[in-house]
Parts: sequence; C-alpha cells; structure tokens
Amino acid sequence: MPGQPRIGDVFGELLRDAYAVQTGVGPRPLAGGRLPRPVIEVIERDDGLINGAPAEHYLAGPEQWQPHDHRAIDRVRGRVLDVGVGAGRIALELQRRRVAVTGLDISAGALDIARRRGVRDLVLATVDEHAAVGRRYDTFLLLGNNLGLIEGRDRAPGFLAALAALARPGAEIIAHGTDPYGTTDPVHVGYHRWNRERGRLGGQLRLRLRYRELGTPWFDYLVCSPDELAELVHGSDWRLADVDRLDAPYYLATLRLAA
Amino acid sequence: MPGQPRIGDVFGELLRDAYAVQTGVGPRPLAGGRLPRPVIEVIERDDGLINGAPAEHYLAGPEQWQPHDHRAIDRVRGRVLDVGVGAGRIALELQRRRVAVTGLDISAGALDIARRRGVRDLVLATVDEHAAVGRRYDTFLLLGNNLGLIEGRDRAPGFLAALAALARPGAEIIAHGTDPYGTTDPVHVGYHRWNRERGRLGGQLRLRLRYRELGTPWFDYLVCSPDELAELVHGSDWRLADVDRLDAPYYLATLRLAA
Repeated sequence: MPGQPRIGDVFGELLRDAYAVQTGVGPRPLAGGRLPRPVIEVIERDDGLINGAPAEHYLAGPEQWQPHDHRAIDRVRGRVLDVGVGAGRIALELQRRRVAVTGLDISAGALDIARRRGVRDLVLATVDEHAAVGRRYDTFLLLGNNLGLIEGRDRAPGFLAALAALARPGAEIIAHGTDPYGTTDPVHVGYHRWNRERGRLGGQLRLRLRYRELGTPWFDYLVCSPDELAELVHGSDWRLADVDRLDAPYYLATLRLAA
Repeated sequence: MPGQPRIGDVFGELLRDAYAVQTGVGPRPLAGGRLPRPVIEVIERDDGLINGAPAEHYLAGPEQWQPHDHRAIDRVRGRVLDVGVGAGRIALELQRRRVAVTGLDISAGALDIARRRGVRDLVLATVDEHAAVGRRYDTFLLLGNNLGLIEGRDRAPGFLAALAALARPGAEIIAHGTDPYGTTDPVHVGYHRWNRERGRLGGQLRLRLRYRELGTPWFDYLVCSPDELAELVHGSDWRLADVDRLDAPYYLATLRLAA
C-alpha cells in the first residue's frame, strides 16, 4: 500500500507558494530545482476522481473575478465576516471600500498570507469557536463556492446556528453556490446517484485537498441546488430571501435572519 | 477506504482534452459545466507526494521548448524511433525537417492525438514488442525525461537489449535525464534515502499518473545521475558516449551501440 499524504495545513502551504510565485517574496517552487513549477491544488473525491486547479485565483484582484463576486460584495451592509477568508482577495477589496471586515479561516498559513497582503482583522477559528467570543456581524460572506461549508443535512443546522449566534438583528448571509444537477457527465451523474444511495445529498462531495506531501482529512463539502438549500435552511433561524442565478449554474443565495 | 481511480488510458484522455483546449476540436473540459477547466496531469509518488502539472507542454511547438530539446533533435541521424511519442511534438518537428521518424507509445489515445496532429508513422507497442517485428533504427529519442523508462537496475538490461535489437550498426540513443541529487528539499532527500534503504536507486520513483477518474498502475520511472546511468549501461550493448550538461540539472545522454 503506497504512502498516504501527511495531514497538514494544505491550504496554507499552497497559498504561501502561490504568493511567492506572484510576488517573488520567499522561495518559489521549482521542478528539478530549476524550472518554475506552477502551484496546483489537488482535489480528490472519494470515488477516485481527482482534479488539479491552479492556485492563483485565490490571489486574484477584482478585475479577474467572476461577475457574481462583484454582485456579492455590492450587497454587503455593516460589519462583515468573510468566512474562509483564504488569502484575503475579498477582504482586501472590502477594506479598500472602507467596509469593516473580519476574515475567518481554519488555516494558519492562509491567515499569514492574508496578513502579509494587508488584511487587518483576522481570526483563526471555526464559526462555532468564533461564535463563543461575543463578536457580532451584519453580513456573512461565503464566496468561492463556500456555501459548501454547510456540508449536508447533519452539519447544516449547527453551521446555521453558529452564524445566527454571530448575527446582529437583520443580518444576511451571502453565499456562492453551484447547482450540480445540470451536468450529463456520467462521472458526476453516477456520483450523485451513489451519494443518494448512501443517504447523502447528491452533490454532497466527500473530498480531501492535497499539496505536495500534505493532505487534509476527508471532509464533506456541499454542492447543492437552490431547492435543496431551501430545505436545509427550513427550521433554522434563517430564511432564504433571494437567489441570484444570473451566472447559472453558479448562484448567490441570500439568507436573512428571521425577525 | 475511499475509492481508487479506475485503471485506464490516463495519458490518452489527458492529451485528448489538452488538444481540445488548444484547438477547439472536441468537447473541452469545464468546471461546473461552464468555466473552462485547465488540463492538469496529476503525478502521485508512493511516499504520498503529489504534483499537478499543466498538460499543454505535451503539445508545445519548438519555440516553447527547452534548449536541450533543440540540441537533442539536432543530433539525430538516419531513421528515428521516438520512444514515448505522446502527442507528437518532437516527431512533428522531425517530419518538418524531412527526417524519417516512427512514433512509439503504449497509449492508444496519445497515438490518436499524434495522428490527428499529423504524425504519419505510429506504433502502439512497448519497445520489447516492437523489437519483435523487424524494424531497425539509427537513432532512438527518449525526450521529455524519458530516460526514466529505463526504470532501474531490474529493468535496465532488458530495456537496453530491446533497443539494441531494434538498432542498426552505429545507432545512438539520445535521452533526456535529470540529476536528482542537487536538491536540498527534505521531501526529496528523504525519499532518496528511503529508496536506498529498500534496495532501489535513490531517484527510482514509484509513480502513478491520474487524470479525472482514471489512474495508471504504479510504475517505476528512474531519475538518475550520469554516474548511475553509466553503471546501468555497463555490460549492455551500449556505451555512454557523451553527456551534455549545459542545462544542468537536466542532461542529454548519448549512448552508442558497441561496435
């Protein structure tokens, strides 16, 4: 049985190298000790599917963003929590607009890069841990497909409750999701079917991220339709107030705290 | 235990998608059914290391090549066998120069792309299988690091004998290798040590390639120093006639058939 990756801060290492490539600050990854090696995030799914994705989009400025990112940040009000701040691409633009923004992440390495790039208020914690410290927000941003952090039926109530505990009256969650069910690719259609057979939502991806010798533990990340989201939100402190599908199959869901 | 990749023609699928991206011919890979997805080859090593590498270099024209590729093809004489022809980048340039070239590969999908790109003489076989059919060559090209096909101490004699069986008098092998021992990266230094402990050459990589749902079986691919190569060649029908180290740590080894 060949070796498994070592559990570690995949995302932090990846962003550190991507930042070195972009800025020339710090050692850049090389192939054969000589040629620059592009920084590629490897995403493994539990059916054996694997994809590599260049990491530079995590550092991209607004001019390279997808239209829904612009529409998302145009919607923010008041004090903002950027959930999964990563290298800070969204938080930096909000700071530039003089919005009060806090960046939350569970990757210490990511926060280090975000800080070096100029993000001022950063917290290393899960939403549950952060809910315990008494800070309150008006807007929660879950961009870069981070609606996925809701994971699935088991985790959704706790995740939404943690955000509600962090919320001021009238707060909104603005989340970027992708409707997975438009595909005809048999690799994905078969995975959705297998998921349902084992009692999961069709697009409830079981993933791990890998970068060089490091891997994350396996985790759930939800890609769901707006209808599935509405069901997950039902019974929580939130209601699904709006779904912007201008960039379908991507969408922006706005959840508003129930009065 | 999460799923393993399905064994299949990884390289062929990868090249088909890279060709579609480059030319617009055939369906291009998309993320979320909408945004173009870059074609990334995933290379997994048996210590858990993983790397992603964009595939477009397999289709690159001479203007994008490394200098050693140009020096390699300037050395060819007579009838050429391009071992591991892939998408045919080398064979196409040789054809343009009116060199008689045959492309050999074990990937049917790669040969399909090479054919579509205009390579005329293609053979689906290993060097051993091809040695049985009576064709003879003056030059064997092992570019794109394909000196690695010599695998290690166990395979080297058989591999060199198969090429000798395919060789006309005075034939040469021109092979691109990389000296792996200049690195100080602990991930690689530790791997070299582990290899030696288990009786392998330091840079005897145990790899598999993955693309989407497909994987290759695990295979050995040798990254060795010129000194190690000299030892492997010793006792074969070949002698190490020249090592061009102008692009160190990369090198071009020329092996000449013993008279």
